[in-house]
Amino acid sequence: MGESAKTHQPPYYAVVFTSQRTEGDRGYGKMAEKMEELASQQQGFLGIESARDSGLGITVSYWDSLDAIRNWKDNSAHKFAQEKGKEEWYKNYTVRVCKVERAYSFEM
Amino acid sequence: MGESAKTHQPPYYAVVFTSQRTEGDRGYGKMAEKMEELASQQQGFLGIESARDSGLGITVSYWDSLDAIRNWKDNSAHKFAQEKGKEEWYKNYTVRVCKVERAYSFEM
Repeated sequence: MGESAKTHQPPYYAVVFTSQRTEGDRGYGKMAEKMEELASQQQGFLGIESARDSGLGITVSYWDSLDAIRNWKDNSAHKFAQEKGKEEWYKNYTVRVCKVERAYSFEM
Repeated sequence: MGESAKTHQPPYYAVVFTSQRTEGDRGYGKMAEKMEELASQQQGFLGIESARDSGLGITVSYWDSLDAIRNWKDNSAHKFAQEKGKEEWYKNYTVRVCKVERAYSFEM
């Protein structure tokens, strides 16, 4: 968390996950860490970036194909976390599957 | 800031802006607010979401076309802010222009 993902050559895919949490941790922090580690081991994973402040959390994960995104969505440990998320951790969330068409970076 | 953007019917466009800030405010907070207000008045603007923690900031703005994104990038007040950003506020940033292909939401 709190690190920039490397930039790859477009086109590739981004999943933008925005969420508002329920109160308290309820095991969320540990699971989020575990899921990030597991995601990074999946075929086609390119990187992940996360920021959360008091109001909103945004996590963007990067993938080389829609198939890679589908496989991660269907991963059984991830599916379990998704269910827990709906029951316990999220007041609301939105998932947006996006094709990255152009990317550029600045370094001071 | 700290609010969820409404979900629209894809396809539409998202600009994912991830950044690491320099130390101190240096007028950044006020300018960020002003730019968010100005962006929201542009033709084709659909919404904006922001989160920043100690390591990383992520702002995602949503637009109805690539033209709308281009126009906002070329807006003169925004161009001035972009220059200040490179001189003062950002250690590094990445801009990714994305086509939102699929979106779904959950509400507790």
